[in-house]
Amino acid sequence: MEFEALSSSELAAYLRGVPSVYALLNQPGELDIAEVGDGNLNYVYFVSNARTPEKSVVVKQAPPFLRLVGKTWPLTRHRMIREVAALRRFGELCPQHVPRVYHADTELYLMVMQRLSTHAILRQKLMDGHVYPKLTDHLSTYLAHTLFYGSDLFLAPEVKKQAVSAAINTELCKITEDLVFTFPFEDHPSNVYSNAFPKQMIERIWRTPALRVAVAEMKWSFMNDAETLVHGDLHTGSIMVNQDETYVIDPEFAFYGPMGFDVGAVLANLLLAYFSRDWHDRRTGQGSDDYRKWLLDQITGIWTAFADKFRLLWREHESRRKSHFIGDDPGGHCAEAYRVRFMQRLLANSLGFAGCKMIRRIVGMAKVADITSISDDAIRAAVEVKCVQFAERLLIERHAFGSIEEVVELARDVQTREHRLQ
Amino acid sequence: MEFEALSSSELAAYLRGVPSVYALLNQPGELDIAEVGDGNLNYVYFVSNARTPEKSVVVKQAPPFLRLVGKTWPLTRHRMIREVAALRRFGELCPQHVPRVYHADTELYLMVMQRLSTHAILRQKLMDGHVYPKLTDHLSTYLAHTLFYGSDLFLAPEVKKQAVSAAINTELCKITEDLVFTFPFEDHPSNVYSNAFPKQMIERIWRTPALRVAVAEMKWSFMNDAETLVHGDLHTGSIMVNQDETYVIDPEFAFYGPMGFDVGAVLANLLLAYFSRDWHDRRTGQGSDDYRKWLLDQITGIWTAFADKFRLLWREHESRRKSHFIGDDPGGHCAEAYRVRFMQRLLANSLGFAGCKMIRRIVGMAKVADITSISDDAIRAAVEVKCVQFAERLLIERHAFGSIEEVVELARDVQTREHRLQ
Repeated sequence: MEFEALSSSELAAYLRGVPSVYALLNQPGELDIAEVGDGNLNYVYFVSNARTPEKSVVVKQAPPFLRLVGKTWPLTRHRMIREVAALRRFGELCPQHVPRVYHADTELYLMVMQRLSTHAILRQKLMDGHVYPKLTDHLSTYLAHTLFYGSDLFLAPEVKKQAVSAAINTELCKITEDLVFTFPFEDHPSNVYSNAFPKQMIERIWRTPALRVAVAEMKWSFMNDAETLVHGDLHTGSIMVNQDETYVIDPEFAFYGPMGFDVGAVLANLLLAYFSRDWHDRRTGQGSDDYRKWLLDQITGIWTAFADKFRLLWREHESRRKSHFIGDDPGGHCAEAYRVRFMQRLLANSLGFAGCKMIRRIVGMAKVADITSISDDAIRAAVEVKCVQFAERLLIERHAFGSIEEVVELARDVQTREHRLQ
Repeated sequence: MEFEALSSSELAAYLRGVPSVYALLNQPGELDIAEVGDGNLNYVYFVSNARTPEKSVVVKQAPPFLRLVGKTWPLTRHRMIREVAALRRFGELCPQHVPRVYHADTELYLMVMQRLSTHAILRQKLMDGHVYPKLTDHLSTYLAHTLFYGSDLFLAPEVKKQAVSAAINTELCKITEDLVFTFPFEDHPSNVYSNAFPKQMIERIWRTPALRVAVAEMKWSFMNDAETLVHGDLHTGSIMVNQDETYVIDPEFAFYGPMGFDVGAVLANLLLAYFSRDWHDRRTGQGSDDYRKWLLDQITGIWTAFADKFRLLWREHESRRKSHFIGDDPGGHCAEAYRVRFMQRLLANSLGFAGCKMIRRIVGMAKVADITSISDDAIRAAVEVKCVQFAERLLIERHAFGSIEEVVELARDVQTREHRLQ
């Protein structure tokens, strides 16, 4: 039977049949239901008690196709099972930053989850110039906890290996393998170039061996390095914020992959926000250097706090367990040297993934509003060129950056090298 | 019920009940059965028709413990299922170098396989100074085919991901994680040091941060990099040879791991043969430089031929499929640059794994006869020190070797630096 999105009355009837959800909604007489999905994949509904609208939940359902494209791009509905499992797992590790799952239906590929009614999508808020003083602390905690506790640094080897197997997510990984690591770097019909994006830049992406090699190495890492349960799509559109709280949503791409993939996604999207800042300053009438600096401070701060928290979790765990990943090490100098090396390598990998993700948002199929909302073709192209130039250096020189400060320094250089928009 | 090894009469009765095996043995009236297992894990029997002894098979059974240690080291018998699956898979990829499986019993954890009656274990033959003119060609083919065809360079992503899951081999991987990557580098009760092995060398292994860091990186790679179906224990005791043929046996450690683990095992064991050569020259009364050179030529030759064959398989596959792992690349320069980089990285990883495997054979629990057969304590210790010194440089400097020739050059240096045994 062909899939049809649930009507409001069908959904209302369904929810009345789920006692736990019915109770959460405070035994509603009438429900307000609105379909609000603007993502690429799924149908999303806000459901509230018509009398007490603060009693509200989100319902998410996976249709058997990619919503962005439609029924011509079929996609199995299994992704909803992966998303529920990932939300529950990340929720155990980091309950303050992951929405709760109230109910999951494995036949309808539907779940009912916590409504974040006072939170907004981070991407839009960054475009509008909002500051979130707790963002660095929250995102670094989320990253440190989710990436550490899924890895061999914490889990027993047999538990980890079963977790790898259980988290196989072939179909959505294939989307990433194609749309992030392959199509943007070749002459592929799915690519979308903005009107004024220079042809020689496109050819440069296709034909620069050092860039193509670096991207291939990141693709290989994505496909082979089963380090931890990663979110798999951690851009600023998957982060919801207010002044007090930060939530990470939409982990349907979760699988056992390289830690740097999540870290790189956060960095890439903050960098896209940074390079497109001039336009949004002008649009919002702000135009101060402060916000530009705040964005760069998030990049430095998130990496630094993440690295500190990750290493702290690692040290505390090994101290409790009285053994190191590397084996016994009286004095702990060798174990600490390994931690330092581990974080250096993770920074390099994160930068490589960030580079891929920036380029795919410029020349690939799926764009970001930070860039697409720039209505002046020439200005948009100038921003896009900077993003690609910076991303190329991240990829090729990823092992040469000694610290996140050097990355931010390069971003500042690339941003100011050419004419600033006024 | 406690496991008891099969008696000859029990095994004979069993084999008579397997029609395919009974036919292979030429409908024997009487069977000659000998238990010959000298490995660490399993019981192994040679079974022949008493009248026509050339009609012969090997029977291998996994007891529920590590045979090397006994019932006090329990081990699930599942490893036999993994070994059968790996033999069949490698046999499809490389039938000329993998013994055939005639029959597998998943209840008795027993298999019947091809008898290699005219072949000998390579390790002993190297100790005795035998030359195998086809070894380089055969082992490089085995490595290129098994490592390439299991990887994302060949398999469709969904097939590869299912293969990773199907090949999980937690228990035997744990043995490697402990005995190869952890225990030898700490003060562990399972370690065995030869009588004259210098205490300062032991402490050096425990306390050199650069070495411990490098070993930890190799352990991380072993546990996380699900690149291809590797043999997992490819030392010279797992290779059977005669002048015409080469077979790789005993893949019970097979799992999806880093390609360099198998390549490194081969290199490590040839290097152990090289560094212990003076003793065996004296023992066998040979003493020419030719054999030493032949051993080094095997190291150079196996890597070089492997790298050539692997790249050729890769190029031919991409040419047939009309697409590259990296995406389209008119002219193919970027794709070729990636192949070059890939092989450089694989050489570095192989050297790192070789270093771990050499050190564990010197100070760890499981030894190799090349070394343990040296009955003079001082000479043995001198050889062992050279092996460890060389292995340490392989590990720490693995990314700095530009070619296999540089590795062999270093081996020659380390070998001649101190007094030669006469």
